[in-house]
Parts: sequence; structure tokens; C-alpha cells
Amino acid sequence: MSNRIITISREFGSGGRTIGRLAAQKLGIACYDQELIDKIAQESGLFKEYVAAHAEDVRSWMDFVSSHDYYGHSVGDKLFSAQTKVIRELAEQESCVIVGRCSDYILGDWDNLLTVFIHASMEKRAERIVNQYGESAQDPVSRLKEKDRKRRAYYQMYTDRRWGAMENYHVALDSGALGIERCAEIVASLY
Amino acid sequence: MSNRIITISREFGSGGRTIGRLAAQKLGIACYDQELIDKIAQESGLFKEYVAAHAEDVRSWMDFVSSHDYYGHSVGDKLFSAQTKVIRELAEQESCVIVGRCSDYILGDWDNLLTVFIHASMEKRAERIVNQYGESAQDPVSRLKEKDRKRRAYYQMYTDRRWGAMENYHVALDSGALGIERCAEIVASLY
Repeated sequence: MSNRIITISREFGSGGRTIGRLAAQKLGIACYDQELIDKIAQESGLFKEYVAAHAEDVRSWMDFVSSHDYYGHSVGDKLFSAQTKVIRELAEQESCVIVGRCSDYILGDWDNLLTVFIHASMEKRAERIVNQYGESAQDPVSRLKEKDRKRRAYYQMYTDRRWGAMENYHVALDSGALGIERCAEIVASLY
Repeated sequence: MSNRIITISREFGSGGRTIGRLAAQKLGIACYDQELIDKIAQESGLFKEYVAAHAEDVRSWMDFVSSHDYYGHSVGDKLFSAQTKVIRELAEQESCVIVGRCSDYILGDWDNLLTVFIHASMEKRAERIVNQYGESAQDPVSRLKEKDRKRRAYYQMYTDRRWGAMENYHVALDSGALGIERCAEIVASLY
């Protein structure tokens, strides 16, 4: 049997990252999220700061239309290809939780996979980014909408699937209604 | 505290009805599904057979454009209004599981509500309708697509929301991947 992998996809501010960490703790397995940045930077040869800023959403269309190499690959393509390699290597290496970075798509053919999507109402997410991340209380909703838009565009561009479409996930949970801890319990129980 | 209600919305052939029954059994509460038909028929004065055939999907656009009463209400409107009354009365009366019939929307403002959506791949659903309901093995996929289309149209018409959109449900489960029994356990555990 291949390693058991849980991928967590999430709306910004839904607490998906925390749910991934908590579920991994309960299961005694690793959770890859920020750690992916280092690995992707190393693999792609791009600066860590660049990877952190660009690994999951479309910052600017210029990222994609400019900076092509000799073979016509943009920096964005290079990043996605490094991301794919790193995520597949991790899955080969150990059972773990992987947060975001189109991991649900990248591991779509993995035979021992649980795909999770975490969402919450705009109101609950706005509350969370203000309280948890110290984001400015000024217009958090605009910030969330912008983040959603970019993440959706990135996912769509590289996977040709609709971001957050129910059929792509084994389980989708509303963390605002159910609570972070309860969501982590469900995810761990499904392992 | 008001009664605790679980609504189960589901794709045809996903086993949502069975999951509702199993979860209700585990919780020792009632599950309303077929029983709704009698109540809606009684409330609306329409034949039971008509209610059964029309209570959840758009059979024909003629249902909606013809047969208007003096006040301009179609038979479809009359049915939906009876359905709304019956479902709200049930919620007032006891904690229970209610399967389908736009109950997630009808009880949208209920303060002690868990909304569940059950889905599965086309392949798994086709397998299920052939095995469980003795549906013809001939082209079950076309039959499912037709059912999906009608159910979606009905939901959209009466709720003005997108059917199966993640944000409308606290939990969405892929019964094909997780299994019927496991889904029922999760639903019951979230009660």
C-alpha cells in the first residue's frame, strides 16, 4: 500500500492550515505547508521569497506572460513544475498532510489519498484574518475577495478545473460553522 | 434551544437517503423522506402520486407555465408552498433528519441546523442505481445526467441558489470514496 496522503485545500482565512496541522498532530504524521517553500525554492532555483509570494496565487498576469526562458516556459511554469516534483517526492517518501499548492490535483492519481476542502463564510473569514493574522480591520472583505480571485485563477490556470468544486474533494467542511477543532477531528478520523 | 435539524441534500444515486436513515437511527431521531410525500399531498390537496413525481425535480416546463390558478400560482408553486409549510412544521415539532426537497434552503434561517450534501462520482452512482434500485443497466449515466439536470433546475428555480454549491453546506461528503456507513457516522457525530 502506498503512503496515505491528506491534501487540504482551503479558502484564505478559513483556518485550513491550522486544521491540517492539528489533524497531522493527532495522527503523528508530518504536515507540509510553509516547509514546502524551502523545498520548492531549492528545486526551482528561485528565491524563497519569490516562491512564498507566488506559489499559490496569480500575483500579476505579467508573471505568466513575461520572463519566458529559451523553451517558452514562464517563471510561473517553472515554479509549478518544481512544486509538482516536490509534492510527488514527499508523497513517495512518507504519509503526511499537504496544505494547498494544488496538491489535490498534483496527487489526483495517488491511490491512497484523502482530499479535503475547508471553507467558511466571508464574515467568519474576515473575523479570523483580523484576529489571527493581525490583518488590518479595514475592509478585510475586499482583501479576501482579492485573495479568492487570485487563488481561483492560479488553480484554474494550472489544473483546468474549477477551484472549490465539490466533486474534486472527498470531504468539504465549513470551519466557520463546525469549528477548527471539530474539523481537525473529522479529517483525522477519516485517515 | 430549538430542535436540532439535519438536512441531507444529495445527488441521485449517491446513497444520501440511506445515509440520512442510518444517521437518524444512530441518533434515535426520525428521518423524513418518503413520509414527506403523504404530508405534502395532504397539505396541498394534490394526489400523492403527483407529489411523489414532482416534489423535487422539474419534470416538464409545462408544469410551471400551465395550470395556473386564479391568483396566477402554478401547481408547482402550490406544491413548493405546501412543501415549505410541512418542512417548517416538522422542524418546529421535533429534532429530525430531512432528506431533500430543498429543505436546506427552506430551513436556511433555522438556528440549530446542520446542512449536509452527499455526492459521488458518476461511475459510483451508476453502479449504485443499477445494483440497488434495479435500474436498467442500459445507459445509467444518461439517466443520472437527466436526473441531475432536473433536480438542479428545480432547486435553482425555487431557491435562486446554485445546487450543490459548497458554501451552502456545512459538510459535503463523497459517499463513493468514503462509503455509506462512514458518511452516516460522520453526519451522526456532527449532530
